[in-house]
Amino acid sequence: MVEGENVRTGVTAILPHGGNLFQEKVAGAVFVGNSFGKLAGSTQVQELGTIETPIVLTNTLAVGTAVDAVVRWTLAQPGNGDVRSVNALVGETNDGTLNDIRGFHVTRDHVTAAITGARTGAVDEGAVGAGTGTIAFGWKGGIGTSSRTVRISGDSWTVGVLVQSNYGGRLVIDGVPVWKALTPAGVTAGVTAATPDGSCMIVVATDAPLDARALQRLAARAVFALARTGSTYSNGSGDFAIAFSTHPSQRVTSAAGPQRRTVLPTDSVSGLFEAVLDATEEAVDNSLLRATDVTANGRTIRALPIEQLKAVLRKYGRGQA
Amino acid sequence: MVEGENVRTGVTAILPHGGNLFQEKVAGAVFVGNSFGKLAGSTQVQELGTIETPIVLTNTLAVGTAVDAVVRWTLAQPGNGDVRSVNALVGETNDGTLNDIRGFHVTRDHVTAAITGARTGAVDEGAVGAGTGTIAFGWKGGIGTSSRTVRISGDSWTVGVLVQSNYGGRLVIDGVPVWKALTPAGVTAGVTAATPDGSCMIVVATDAPLDARALQRLAARAVFALARTGSTYSNGSGDFAIAFSTHPSQRVTSAAGPQRRTVLPTDSVSGLFEAVLDATEEAVDNSLLRATDVTANGRTIRALPIEQLKAVLRKYGRGQA
Amino acid sequence: MVEGENVRTGVTAILPHGGNLFQEKVAGAVFVGNSFGKLAGSTQVQELGTIETPIVLTNTLAVGTAVDAVVRWTLAQPGNGDVRSVNALVGETNDGTLNDIRGFHVTRDHVTAAITGARTGAVDEGAVGAGTGTIAFGWKGGIGTSSRTVRISGDSWTVGVLVQSNYGGRLVIDGVPVWKALTPAGVTAGVTAATPDGSCMIVVATDAPLDARALQRLAARAVFALARTGSTYSNGSGDFAIAFSTHPSQRVTSAAGPQRRTVLPTDSVSGLFEAVLDATEEAVDNSLLRATDVTANGRTIRALPIEQLKAVLRKYGRGQA
Amino acid sequence: MVEGENVRTGVTAILPHGGNLFQEKVAGAVFVGNSFGKLAGSTQVQELGTIETPIVLTNTLAVGTAVDAVVRWTLAQPGNGDVRSVNALVGETNDGTLNDIRGFHVTRDHVTAAITGARTGAVDEGAVGAGTGTIAFGWKGGIGTSSRTVRISGDSWTVGVLVQSNYGGRLVIDGVPVWKALTPAGVTAGVTAATPDGSCMIVVATDAPLDARALQRLAARAVFALARTGSTYSNGSGDFAIAFSTHPSQRVTSAAGPQRRTVLPTDSVSGLFEAVLDATEEAVDNSLLRATDVTANGRTIRALPIEQLKAVLRKYGRGQA
Repeated sequence: MVEGENVRTGVTAILPHGGNLFQEKVAGAVFVGNSFGKLAGSTQVQELGTIETPIVLTNTLAVGTAVDAVVRWTLAQPGNGDVRSVNALVGETNDGTLNDIRGFHVTRDHVTAAITGARTGAVDEGAVGAGTGTIAFGWKGGIGTSSRTVRISGDSWTVGVLVQSNYGGRLVIDGVPVWKALTPAGVTAGVTAATPDGSCMIVVATDAPLDARALQRLAARAVFALARTGSTYSNGSGDFAIAFSTHPSQRVTSAAGPQRRTVLPTDSVSGLFEAVLDATEEAVDNSLLRATDVTANGRTIRALPIEQLKAVLRKYGRGQA
Repeated sequence: MVEGENVRTGVTAILPHGGNLFQEKVAGAVFVGNSFGKLAGSTQVQELGTIETPIVLTNTLAVGTAVDAVVRWTLAQPGNGDVRSVNALVGETNDGTLNDIRGFHVTRDHVTAAITGARTGAVDEGAVGAGTGTIAFGWKGGIGTSSRTVRISGDSWTVGVLVQSNYGGRLVIDGVPVWKALTPAGVTAGVTAATPDGSCMIVVATDAPLDARALQRLAARAVFALARTGSTYSNGSGDFAIAFSTHPSQRVTSAAGPQRRTVLPTDSVSGLFEAVLDATEEAVDNSLLRATDVTANGRTIRALPIEQLKAVLRKYGRGQA
Repeated sequence: MVEGENVRTGVTAILPHGGNLFQEKVAGAVFVGNSFGKLAGSTQVQELGTIETPIVLTNTLAVGTAVDAVVRWTLAQPGNGDVRSVNALVGETNDGTLNDIRGFHVTRDHVTAAITGARTGAVDEGAVGAGTGTIAFGWKGGIGTSSRTVRISGDSWTVGVLVQSNYGGRLVIDGVPVWKALTPAGVTAGVTAATPDGSCMIVVATDAPLDARALQRLAARAVFALARTGSTYSNGSGDFAIAFSTHPSQRVTSAAGPQRRTVLPTDSVSGLFEAVLDATEEAVDNSLLRATDVTANGRTIRALPIEQLKAVLRKYGRGQA
Repeated sequence: MVEGENVRTGVTAILPHGGNLFQEKVAGAVFVGNSFGKLAGSTQVQELGTIETPIVLTNTLAVGTAVDAVVRWTLAQPGNGDVRSVNALVGETNDGTLNDIRGFHVTRDHVTAAITGARTGAVDEGAVGAGTGTIAFGWKGGIGTSSRTVRISGDSWTVGVLVQSNYGGRLVIDGVPVWKALTPAGVTAGVTAATPDGSCMIVVATDAPLDARALQRLAARAVFALARTGSTYSNGSGDFAIAFSTHPSQRVTSAAGPQRRTVLPTDSVSGLFEAVLDATEEAVDNSLLRATDVTANGRTIRALPIEQLKAVLRKYGRGQA
């Protein structure tokens, strides 16, 4: 989190594994839903099918700084003394309503701190990191996560999703048209959020042995899932999903000659597709439910009021079971 | 409709305008959501941004016959005496559960009849044409349509959507989890439809002056909208949307030299995106609501029972206003 | 070859292996250089990374017939009794100058005969099969082939290329501007061939263990290689390359659960890229050098005159060593 | 140019026009030939079809710094006081052999100076700007330019190409296999340059009224043209072309509602394709011919020796007319 007077921004870093990412790249892919967005690094990922750095999320105008920081951090890792080419993967959403984005408050040190501070285990959600100043459907958005486990031919595989929610449309939760009942301050009741523009960055991780082609298909489902939440994927949105596999056999090193890889075939992936759809929807919900009110630039963006939300859900037949 | 013993298939044709389509091509685009599908003609549309034939939908194994028929029909139109290259645009879904698809019952004449029989005005829906034998969420699917009108900077533009629904997942209508309450025969209650595989072909038409780039983005939203209906975009699905503009200034003829075109700029298209999302969702609903029971191959696929559906919707707070 | 009065067309079939292609799919990819072309089947190949039928080349207006034939042939193979979905991969170039293309002389039987007649061993070149009526640089084009063997980390891998040449520009052979010295009948000396439009279909086969991602990159180099021959990739050209691997570990069956695959990593493929560039250039040359004069529709298209060509090459310092 | 002890790098900036690029965007496109490269900004260009900043070329590890500088410069331009989202378009090649690339010697100020120093008129070529430390085919590469004028339906249109050459393969000039006769120091005679890896960034500008779709096709031909020069498009290369139109009717402003645009139709572009192929080849040649010897990091990379080159060209029948 980067905060100060009218500064509400930050950085979130995802490390696909705890080793040397550059020397042991992971299979990875990017799906572009709508690219009014400044995602850096996607073309090399699409060509080679590998991710070789931490994935960093931040604000729109901090992408250059974040790329620079990721490159420098990578060069400085033990074993990378000869590295002269690094493909930093950096996504963003625009927090310019709550944040003095033109002030360039994210520094290289903030990015490095996010990378070195990354930990395994539960992820902070809500108005934290790259979600500090984001807004979704007129409510305070932010970082949200969710996961699903799927059994395929006797194996269990997990899909985890992290979102940085900062987009608009008409908020739907679990199929319930929340937008009809609850209206954020500053938005006329019953209409689409005043600023449908905005973006959603999604990161999908799985331990299933998927190659980059299958990961690309998972990433697509993550973007498709936004439709369930009421996204209108407006012109001004940058809706991207990045997906990677942590399976050891999908690691790519500089070893020459034929490699042996384990891969889940095409016919076995449908369960993972469904898991990504569900987990992404829930991650967006969580980004809203874990958010807190944020005030800056003379305005307050409210967190979705949970008690009122529960009442709305009940009205629509949920939460009774 | 092509019917006989265990034959439940057919052809649906969409003509972007009533003139010579080859001589006056329309701006057009294709979006590929998941392409376990045999759509013919998409690469040329993506390169040139134009559609030059009727758009024909049929069953999976009839694509070759339909391409042949569209090409022959195009060559035979007045004014096309010198034409030696035609890009037929043919989509499909697989009706092999209800239809003896391996019997190749769709003929060139069926395709030609669908083209020459196309009329302006209301479109038949349900188990007709290319939707004769399709199944969606375990219920009888088929052809469905819907439209929306949008005001942009003082102009009114219309978006119309036609779907050929033949896919699976967990049926959601207007946000209501219908799949929890209503279970088609032969499917275990409360679980995903036994055969999530299947496909959805979507055709989007608009009178707005959009170029092929904008139409591609409309087509993407049509595919995204399937997420609202409960699609899991499974491995075996062919989820494609074709979009075209009927605006006169977007017609492409063989005239040489610079042409004057009217085009709606990028910043003005978000309203159309929202319209496509809504109309596609409704078109899928209509494909189910207008369907009728179909029996073939020793099994009956039921239409979604409307009275029971109404009860479910009421339970979830709909239809009370 | 399909021949009659003013009929100069045909079909060429490539079978990636001699077994059941549908049950044992090969890793495959398509690269689209310029798609004023009617290639059928590419979207599924790009999604799934597999080819499941013979690859068939024919003329532009016969694609529908060829798709139909490939589908029927596949259904009829032993072991395919339950198959209800087949992705036929069919390419084309336009032989309408020498061939009565509007007469639809290619039949389903011609296609089936090409498939069942396919043999291992040397491939007929020149004015045969799908190259019967094609024209390249104003000279008689046709089918040409070439191959290269590459050593990578102790293993030898082979790349084979087949082209169906039917395009224009300014003919260059081995870097020599042949177009300046030799002018085909009916073309003004020293200018670009009267009809730069036309197409080139390229098929790349390799025994290296490449996945679909790497094969896509090989296919791209095949299209790039056309620049060496003088192609101008004009608006009206359909320049596609299809690539597949015959390596046993890259076969895709319907087996569920994780599979073990051998794959050559990204860092090891550059030698194969170079091989594809060289073999494609030579395959185009061979398509011209093995062609013979063809007369139809009241015109004769000459084969490139080899003795005169030799003189030109000598003038430019070739053939002296 | 950024120089110091073992520092041989720099920045080149191309401004599509001299006004406010953000407020008056130009139609633009990117073609990805091989993307082992860090090009930033391409996804938004591909979605929206517009370029809104100077195009900046620099070294691989300076992309983050350059993005940051371009964003800051754009925000600071008169009329951009409310801008909160900027898509910087930054390309790179790797000059790590001659340049202490890990030292991060390119600063924000260097980038700003390149932008503000841009002038109309002749462009410096050779070892300047982003070409200060690049190597092509084992010789000193750098910046090269070329242009062609084409008449189409009575109008004259110009295509200009700028390259930043830094790649390998076997050098061919005007079809002559220079690599057989001239061998750069440190490379074994007659073999492919020791380091085929490397990249080529290409920028194509035209005054023809082309939309982004046509510009994408021009950009593709620019990459294809590298095949003529002996590029092997190796795994490690980043081969990209950016194309834009300076035609006034293709400017995109924030005006709402339908716009009138002039556009050259698909059927009229083949002449421009040929022009791009020829100009790109020549621009690469010029990048070599205008280069000078550069020494750093204890090695000297020689410029292609022009007198010896002339002798080789003569041997192969050139330069005699």
